[in-house]
Amino acid sequence: MASIFTKIVRGEIPAHKIAEDDHFLAFLDIQPLAAGHTLVIPKKETDYLFDLEDRDLGAMMVFSKKIAKALRAAVPCLRIGVCVIGLEVPHAHIHLIPLNHIGDINFERPKLHPGTEELHAMAENIRRQLA
Amino acid sequence: MASIFTKIVRGEIPAHKIAEDDHFLAFLDIQPLAAGHTLVIPKKETDYLFDLEDRDLGAMMVFSKKIAKALRAAVPCLRIGVCVIGLEVPHAHIHLIPLNHIGDINFERPKLHPGTEELHAMAENIRRQLA
Repeated sequence: MASIFTKIVRGEIPAHKIAEDDHFLAFLDIQPLAAGHTLVIPKKETDYLFDLEDRDLGAMMVFSKKIAKALRAAVPCLRIGVCVIGLEVPHAHIHLIPLNHIGDINFERPKLHPGTEELHAMAENIRRQLA
Repeated sequence: MASIFTKIVRGEIPAHKIAEDDHFLAFLDIQPLAAGHTLVIPKKETDYLFDLEDRDLGAMMVFSKKIAKALRAAVPCLRIGVCVIGLEVPHAHIHLIPLNHIGDINFERPKLHPGTEELHAMAENIRRQLA
């Protein structure tokens, strides 16, 4: 069965997309740890990040770098943190999370629940920084 | 002033090294979140991961992948998690952390304090998996 992320790639589930190319897609996490929390995925469904071919793994980080730079420009923060856990959705994804404090990456913390309008505006804001 | 990691690269501070090539070095975190917690750094001192050139960023992930595979073979766990925070040491580093639970990446949790013997044995064990 297709992962929830594959369904987003196919457009079967809506998402607040930030950017995509032939191989990768970035979109907002709808239950972010911080406003602007973005997920980067390979379009080709692969469970574990380190099962990606070297070329794809490197390219995914370079794609993530572009997104992180736009995210940092769009959201006031000290750094964009990077995190890959991989224990929930079986489709590799890199979390890009605006950080202000060393404890900001903790997936047991309560998530935020931004509304659709807020997510829409955030995605637009980040996309504007990419342009 | 050279970062603590540059001093490790230069051999001025000892470390439990896992692997190195011309550009990258992997060694054990001496205050790990989990046994086997490893740091991967670029030898060239660069503060922020996403300030690395695309080629170096991609190569650092490919280097990390090799280490993660050896680490996973050496340490019983579900996955090797990946994390970059970057708010403390001003020298980019990727944390590779054996994970069993979604909350295992949380830098506010109490760290482990393995002894030198234990770190030595762990490094040897991971290096054996690389071979």
